[in-house]
Amino acid sequence: MSRQKTTIASFESISPAEFFYRNRQMAGFGNPTQAVYSTVRELVENSLDSCEDAQIPPFVGIEILSDMADTVTISVSDNGTGVPSEQVPDAFGRVLYGSKYSNRQKRGTFGLGVTMAVLYGQITTDSPMSVHSRTQGADGLLYRLLVDVVNNRPIVVEKKPQPRSEEGTTVTVTLKGDLKRSQDRIIDYLRFSTISTPHAKFHLNIDDKVDLNFGGFSKTLPIPVRTSHPHPRAADVELLRRLIQQNCEKTLHDFLCDSFQKIGTRTATKFLRFMNLNPSQIVGELKREELARLGTSLRSYDGFENPDSKCLSPIGKDDFLHSVTSLLNASMAYYSIRGPSEWQGNPFVIEAVLATGDDFPRSDIPTLYRFANRVPLLYDSSDDMLVRVLKRTRWARYNMQTAAPVGLFVHVCSTKIPFKAAGKQSIASIPEIENDAHHLFMELGRKFSKTIAKSQRSARDAKKMREFAKAFRQIARFSTALADHENIPSTENLVRKLFEVDSDA
Amino acid sequence: MSRQKTTIASFESISPAEFFYRNRQMAGFGNPTQAVYSTVRELVENSLDSCEDAQIPPFVGIEILSDMADTVTISVSDNGTGVPSEQVPDAFGRVLYGSKYSNRQKRGTFGLGVTMAVLYGQITTDSPMSVHSRTQGADGLLYRLLVDVVNNRPIVVEKKPQPRSEEGTTVTVTLKGDLKRSQDRIIDYLRFSTISTPHAKFHLNIDDKVDLNFGGFSKTLPIPVRTSHPHPRAADVELLRRLIQQNCEKTLHDFLCDSFQKIGTRTATKFLRFMNLNPSQIVGELKREELARLGTSLRSYDGFENPDSKCLSPIGKDDFLHSVTSLLNASMAYYSIRGPSEWQGNPFVIEAVLATGDDFPRSDIPTLYRFANRVPLLYDSSDDMLVRVLKRTRWARYNMQTAAPVGLFVHVCSTKIPFKAAGKQSIASIPEIENDAHHLFMELGRKFSKTIAKSQRSARDAKKMREFAKAFRQIARFSTALADHENIPSTENLVRKLFEVDSDA
Repeated sequence: MSRQKTTIASFESISPAEFFYRNRQMAGFGNPTQAVYSTVRELVENSLDSCEDAQIPPFVGIEILSDMADTVTISVSDNGTGVPSEQVPDAFGRVLYGSKYSNRQKRGTFGLGVTMAVLYGQITTDSPMSVHSRTQGADGLLYRLLVDVVNNRPIVVEKKPQPRSEEGTTVTVTLKGDLKRSQDRIIDYLRFSTISTPHAKFHLNIDDKVDLNFGGFSKTLPIPVRTSHPHPRAADVELLRRLIQQNCEKTLHDFLCDSFQKIGTRTATKFLRFMNLNPSQIVGELKREELARLGTSLRSYDGFENPDSKCLSPIGKDDFLHSVTSLLNASMAYYSIRGPSEWQGNPFVIEAVLATGDDFPRSDIPTLYRFANRVPLLYDSSDDMLVRVLKRTRWARYNMQTAAPVGLFVHVCSTKIPFKAAGKQSIASIPEIENDAHHLFMELGRKFSKTIAKSQRSARDAKKMREFAKAFRQIARFSTALADHENIPSTENLVRKLFEVDSDA
Repeated sequence: MSRQKTTIASFESISPAEFFYRNRQMAGFGNPTQAVYSTVRELVENSLDSCEDAQIPPFVGIEILSDMADTVTISVSDNGTGVPSEQVPDAFGRVLYGSKYSNRQKRGTFGLGVTMAVLYGQITTDSPMSVHSRTQGADGLLYRLLVDVVNNRPIVVEKKPQPRSEEGTTVTVTLKGDLKRSQDRIIDYLRFSTISTPHAKFHLNIDDKVDLNFGGFSKTLPIPVRTSHPHPRAADVELLRRLIQQNCEKTLHDFLCDSFQKIGTRTATKFLRFMNLNPSQIVGELKREELARLGTSLRSYDGFENPDSKCLSPIGKDDFLHSVTSLLNASMAYYSIRGPSEWQGNPFVIEAVLATGDDFPRSDIPTLYRFANRVPLLYDSSDDMLVRVLKRTRWARYNMQTAAPVGLFVHVCSTKIPFKAAGKQSIASIPEIENDAHHLFMELGRKFSKTIAKSQRSARDAKKMREFAKAFRQIARFSTALADHENIPSTENLVRKLFEVDSDA
């Protein structure tokens, strides 16, 4: 019986750093190939987010050095505004610590990616990472850091002034990894990043053997995204309680208007009447079950408008078409966009470009290129919601087999991308997003098939025109001979006019 | 310029509860259907682990009640040893808190699943969960709990004595969910659980409309798993540092022998000589770079034996075959096992049953049923490593098309299953596991094709035998007539002997 006691009596708490140390495959660090790829990706995304937040056209340099023992040193530099000195240790050496969450589109999941890279480097090589950063008005500063995994705390190994000519940040991580097998993915990642972030420039150097420049397809920065109030359909009890804490003196009516987007005085009045709630109730005095009822009502009421999209940053028609056709050899390209819609109160927009060209693999269905919040997704496609929608769409309807191979570039942007895992590689199945994606794909299919039909029709017309022209010329020749004339009249105009009428009809 | 300042200066830390509240789809709580399913699954797994830890044949009751407004109340009871009163709040109301990690096979990922169910219930219905538990020698106690998401702390809403006739635990969670769409999955989950845990019994009641009993295919409990020392190939720097902390006075030689499995005195000596390390070095005095070198050496040295499997609990040949053929209408069934092997130092074993029968869908390749650490995996199959291996295996070689439809039941057990996400639905791609799975599948294919070939041969033999018998009888008749005898001699023995010789050859 004592055995029972010992087996159940022992409990412990672990830090989030420990959790992801134990389950690093969940965060995209499952094997040496993925680890190299994810490190580059997380550092680049950090740089892009930081430049865009500061409205600076990003220039990101990626330098990779490797030795024979699979030790890979990855260094990513940007021209952002730098990280304030006092924030460096926590921002890089602590899991679940990052720049304050706000309700707007961003690349990073909160406070995980870069620290995972640091952690992976440390457990495979025991080398501290380094951050060399300079902020406005300050001097350059170099930190060397480790993570105290058990306590989820940064350990500052070294901190010293180090000059830096410009503002910006350089992060260097040394890890054991498989560079050879990840190299192509890294190059693909940067190439496709130039589609989703066409205003960024990248420079990649690998062991001085690979030296590539990417991007700069667009000269203009995207309109900065703005933080917005939550949409009422995001109102779970947890959120309501937090919002009420900051507004406990307000009446229910005012609380709704001030805390949520898409609720003005009129909508609030209508909603409260419909749900039979008292508008002048002080929210701080709401009882537990009233709170739960309010949440349910907000989530189920269908009188709210769709969310606003100022917090989102789609690539946009011109940039998206331009970057796809600049990067790839595309002969035709079509753009469509849907939204803003919402899933569980989170606004989202889906936009896509369908292009034909010989760069794409030949297949019955378009080859899919996925993007989420301006980040290309290159791993784990088979389980992605977009792949399911792609397969569900009946492409045969749209005459694809008659054209050159087709590529489909899909960009989902949202204040929250429902990634299936912390490694941010595939999007979970959310009915609202699936539905919009499906309609978007069909719309692009129709656009495509219309053009194809048109070009097929014009090919038929050209043939018909040639036959008519031949016949007309013959008739003209015979008639001229019959009438004993010498000059055969031209029939060209006649034929052309005939077909002009036809194509107007 | 002030804009730049505000955008970069604001940082925050979030609790792991907050992280999974924001990213609940990563933990299997992405939509109302999944939420109901995952709640049942997490509670059942908890119950099974707790009963097995105490060597009690599990009896798990699942009661589900729903109303018209999609409020679903899920109650799971077990006959385990109960949860000690002082542990209840943290064990159920705190993310990343659980029974102490040990290096052995278990169902649960550490300290996430059940608290996620509690959290999901709370944010969708604002109802506290309840735990009614009784441990040995104590009285029954009822807790009602909520999670303080921001601080990752339990909030005890109520705590009172409540009689309970037997030891064990009943956990009740109320949430908004889609019971209708999850019901079949829940039933499948329990049915397949009877294959992987054949010694458990389940009782399911849904709104008094569904009332089912499952399991009890085996009377014997599996041999209890034992915690083992880590395998040397698990020695990353983090682990080394922790082990050294507890043994800093030891010499390198003794430290290795005492801290790792598969390192005895001889292996230690050989390893240290090969790696040119000093056996009498005191480990507490190892410098950073020496530590890193020791880790690399331990991970790369190929003279260590495969890990021992006492920490693993495969289903085993008899139980696995018996439960598959008991649950499903299988005409033939084959079993194979591979391992113990290791991935990143974590021991694993793969076993599988290949069965034919009309219960399986007809297909060119076997229908796959996945299990990990005795848990059936029913979601997210398309991205699972096992599915990739299944598709890679050339089943056409093994004469499958000639037989009834085929099902393949695969069970991976390991001290650590590399799940792709915290929702524990699909297994990440790890070369070592893929490789073993591939060999296992081929082995089963060969077993299968051998039997098929044999049965085809015996069908051919029977036909041949009939023809010979006919000819022999005719010869006997003619010869008898020719010799003017009356009694035609029997030729049966002759034919049989002929074929006995043939099949011996």
